[in-house]
Amino acid sequence: VTASGSGDRRRTAASVPDLVARLRTGDPRSVARAISLVEDESPLLRELMAALAPLAGRAHVVGLTGPPGVGKSTSTNALVGQLRARGHTVGVLAVDPSSPFTGGALLGDRIRMADHALDRGVFIRSMASRGHLGGLAWSTPQAIRVLDAAGCDVILVETVGVGQSEVEIAGQADTTVILLAPGGGDGIQAAKAGILEIGDVYVVNKADRDGATQVRRDLRRMLGMGAARDDWQPPILATVASQGQGIDAVADALATHLRWLEETGERSRRRAVRAAQEIEAIAIARLRAAWSPAGAGVAADLATEVADGVLDPYAAADRLLDARS
Amino acid sequence: VTASGSGDRRRTAASVPDLVARLRTGDPRSVARAISLVEDESPLLRELMAALAPLAGRAHVVGLTGPPGVGKSTSTNALVGQLRARGHTVGVLAVDPSSPFTGGALLGDRIRMADHALDRGVFIRSMASRGHLGGLAWSTPQAIRVLDAAGCDVILVETVGVGQSEVEIAGQADTTVILLAPGGGDGIQAAKAGILEIGDVYVVNKADRDGATQVRRDLRRMLGMGAARDDWQPPILATVASQGQGIDAVADALATHLRWLEETGERSRRRAVRAAQEIEAIAIARLRAAWSPAGAGVAADLATEVADGVLDPYAAADRLLDARS
Repeated sequence: VTASGSGDRRRTAASVPDLVARLRTGDPRSVARAISLVEDESPLLRELMAALAPLAGRAHVVGLTGPPGVGKSTSTNALVGQLRARGHTVGVLAVDPSSPFTGGALLGDRIRMADHALDRGVFIRSMASRGHLGGLAWSTPQAIRVLDAAGCDVILVETVGVGQSEVEIAGQADTTVILLAPGGGDGIQAAKAGILEIGDVYVVNKADRDGATQVRRDLRRMLGMGAARDDWQPPILATVASQGQGIDAVADALATHLRWLEETGERSRRRAVRAAQEIEAIAIARLRAAWSPAGAGVAADLATEVADGVLDPYAAADRLLDARS
Repeated sequence: VTASGSGDRRRTAASVPDLVARLRTGDPRSVARAISLVEDESPLLRELMAALAPLAGRAHVVGLTGPPGVGKSTSTNALVGQLRARGHTVGVLAVDPSSPFTGGALLGDRIRMADHALDRGVFIRSMASRGHLGGLAWSTPQAIRVLDAAGCDVILVETVGVGQSEVEIAGQADTTVILLAPGGGDGIQAAKAGILEIGDVYVVNKADRDGATQVRRDLRRMLGMGAARDDWQPPILATVASQGQGIDAVADALATHLRWLEETGERSRRRAVRAAQEIEAIAIARLRAAWSPAGAGVAADLATEVADGVLDPYAAADRLLDARS
C-alpha cells in the first residue's frame, strides 16, 4: 500500500501511544501518519521516537543508489516482488535529496510502483528533505525506525542520483546496493563519485543492452584495484529489472550479506553509525535553532561582522560556541 | 594560470604572514598554497583566515550551476574570456560535491580551460569536498576569501550537478547563474529541484539546438508562476557558449545585477548569509571533533545505546549537548 500522508494530516491528531499501538499492528494509515510527523518535524516526534526506539532494530535496511537512468524505480519494484514472494514484508523509502525547496519528492507516492499499491505487506513512501543539508541525516533514520517498528522485514531506501548526500544516505543502510547500467560515461563517472567505497552489492541493470559486459568488467577491475575494506567481497550481478531477470540473485545476495553482517558484528557497527548521524543531526539542529532564532540572534550578528571583515570566522565560531554556555 | 596545489604542497612551508604578503600581490603559487591549506583543513587555517578577513570583501562572487551536460565548463571558459576582455581579473573555483571520497575533483586543474592557462589575470582551481556533508559549506567561503584577497574582481564558483548541496553552494554567491540546455526532460526536472528559487540570471545554452525556444518559454512560464522574491526580475538569456555567442549579454547581466545588489543592500545580506554558513560549519566541525575523537568518545557510546533501542535519539542528543559544558 502507499503510505501517503496528505490525507492523513487532516485527520484529528491521535495521541502518540494510540498511534504507536496501531502502528505496531502494521496499520498503513498509522505508518503514513508517523512518517508525516517525521517529515513535518512535529513537536510530537520526540515522544514518538522514544516510544518506537525499543520496538525497532529488527529490519534489514537496504540502501539502493545509482546515477539517473539506471532503472532504480524498476529495480526496486522488481525487488519488492521478489522479497514478497519469499514471504517478507517490505518498506520502501524513496528519498530525494535534490528537492530541497519544493517539500515534495519528484515522484508521487501514488504513481510509484503501482504493482504493489494494494499489497498490505508493502509500505511505500517518498520523502524530500526540508531544505537544510543534514535534514535527511535526521529524517531518514527516523522514517526507518517507523517502518521497522511497523514490522517490515526489509526496508529499501532508494535515493535519486549519486551526489554526496545520496552516498551518505545509502551509507546509513545495513547493506548498500549500487545500481549501474550501460550507456554514456555515467557508469564510470558515478563509480568515481565515491560509490566504489560504499557498495556491498553491485548490480548492472539493463544487462541485455550493448556495453553491459564492459560495465561489469570495468567495475570488477576498479573494485579489484581498491584496498579491500574487509573480508566481504562485493558481488557484481546483472539484471534486466523490467523483465524481472536476475532479481532472485539480488535477493540472494542481500540475504547472504545480512548473514555476513550478523556473523561479523558489522551489523551492530553500521547501526551505531546510523544512530550517531541521527543524534548529531538532532543536536546540531537544536544548536542552530538556538543560534539563529528566525534569522536573528547571535549568529546573525557574528555573520555581519565576518562579512564586513571585522571578525575572522574562527573567532566568530568561538563566540558562537561560548554564547550557549 | 591554474592554481594547482599538488606541487606546492611539497615546498617548504612559509609563515602565514609571508604567504599573505605574497598572496596580496596576486602571486599564483601563493594562491594555490592558500587554497591547499583550505582543502587540507590545515592547522594554519585559523591564522590565515584571520589575516585575510580584512583584505577580502571586494570581489563579485558569481555562482554557476545546472544539470550535467548543459555546458558549464564551456560557459565558464567563455565567460572568463569576456570578463578578461573587460579588464577584470577572474578567479574560478570548480566545486565538486559529488566526489566525497576521492579527495580530488573529476576534472584536473591542468586540463580545464586551457585557453586561460597562461593568463596571469585568471586563477583556476578545482575543489572536492572532504567527505562530510557541510565540508563545502566551510571550504567554499574560505577559498572565495583567498581569491578575493588575492585581488580577483570576479570569482566564478562552478558546481557540478543540481543536487541540494550544489544549490546551497551556488546560493552562497552574490549572483547565481542557472544554466540550462535543450534536450531530455532534464531542464524541467532541474528546474523543479529548487533552482527556480535561487537563480538571479538564467542562461539557456546550446541555443542553436532544437528545443531551446521551448526551454526558454517553459522557464519564463515557471518563473512567472512563482512568487516574486524581490524587485529583481531574473533575465532569461540564450547562448552558444562553444562559439562565444551571447556571452557578452551574460557579462552585462552580471554587472547589472551587481549594481542592483549594491543599491538595495542585498549584497551585504547575501555576504552575511555566506559568513553565517561558514561560522556554523566551523562551530559544528569543532563540536563533532569533540564528540567523536577518532570514532570513540561520548557520541559513539550514545550511538550504541540508540542502536540497541535502549535510549531514544532525542535523549541522546540532550546528553551529547550536555557533555561539552
